[in-house]
Amino acid sequence: MDINQRMTENCSVQEAYGEPFQHCWGCGVQNESGLHIRTYPNPENGTCICRVTPPSQYTGGVPKHLFGGMIAMIFDCHGTASAAWFFHQAHGGDSLTPETQIRRFITARLEVDFRQPTPMNQEVQVTAVAEEIGERKVIVRMELTVGEKLCAQARMVAVATKEP
Amino acid sequence: MDINQRMTENCSVQEAYGEPFQHCWGCGVQNESGLHIRTYPNPENGTCICRVTPPSQYTGGVPKHLFGGMIAMIFDCHGTASAAWFFHQAHGGDSLTPETQIRRFITARLEVDFRQPTPMNQEVQVTAVAEEIGERKVIVRMELTVGEKLCAQARMVAVATKEP
Repeated sequence: MDINQRMTENCSVQEAYGEPFQHCWGCGVQNESGLHIRTYPNPENGTCICRVTPPSQYTGGVPKHLFGGMIAMIFDCHGTASAAWFFHQAHGGDSLTPETQIRRFITARLEVDFRQPTPMNQEVQVTAVAEEIGERKVIVRMELTVGEKLCAQARMVAVATKEP
Repeated sequence: MDINQRMTENCSVQEAYGEPFQHCWGCGVQNESGLHIRTYPNPENGTCICRVTPPSQYTGGVPKHLFGGMIAMIFDCHGTASAAWFFHQAHGGDSLTPETQIRRFITARLEVDFRQPTPMNQEVQVTAVAEEIGERKVIVRMELTVGEKLCAQARMVAVATKEP
């Protein structure tokens, strides 16, 4: 079962990374044992969206709540992918294909605020917006929700790698 | 193979959590598919130490570096466990056994600064110190090193759960 919600027939940001950068356990297309988290841009409202139902083993201290480390991990993958999209778009890119070879970003700093416990076995949605787009640095803000419930927020400073 | 370095015959903080709180994928003794990260207090210098060699699938975008989300996850488990120990010690506890039922802490905020890439297939050591111990809140600072190399730093605000 694929744990990720394929939202459209569009290409995800992770599928548009160059092959050398596709090995992340959280979101890498080439990582056979990974989670394959996907980030989809929504150019209409300037966000990037990730929807994922984490498998049942990723509980926190108590079995009914999602592990906070998994939440940080989802923010890490979705934040760097969103940074890549926002940077791409700011430089004139308006779409993605597997041939795009979008510039890969890595995390310099990640701040996560856990607002309330995240329930297990439900789809979480993470929405990202750009706070700042610089020459090599993108600052991204994210919110993780389950239904209408805001469970966690994050801010990431992401930096472009030298190669695409 | 156990990926964690059992440092002594002493009880780890995670083994001293009450059973209802032992289910974390990162560090829960009861989570069968989890990583079983362990935190050991060093009362002599006021630190808590975690040593772990993350399995080879947990790569970042490029195969030679550890996934940043895994780093955040290790900080999350080791930070809350260290907070539990520092709180226990500040209230007169001087040792741990599986019968201790140490008070469980959860993460309210986690900040991670990634200083340089963390190499794969090497033991990482995370050292935690208490910055502040309040009535229900503990602030912990952590450093992740590989050998002499400082790879990442973190600051956590952890809060005690109501039940032990």
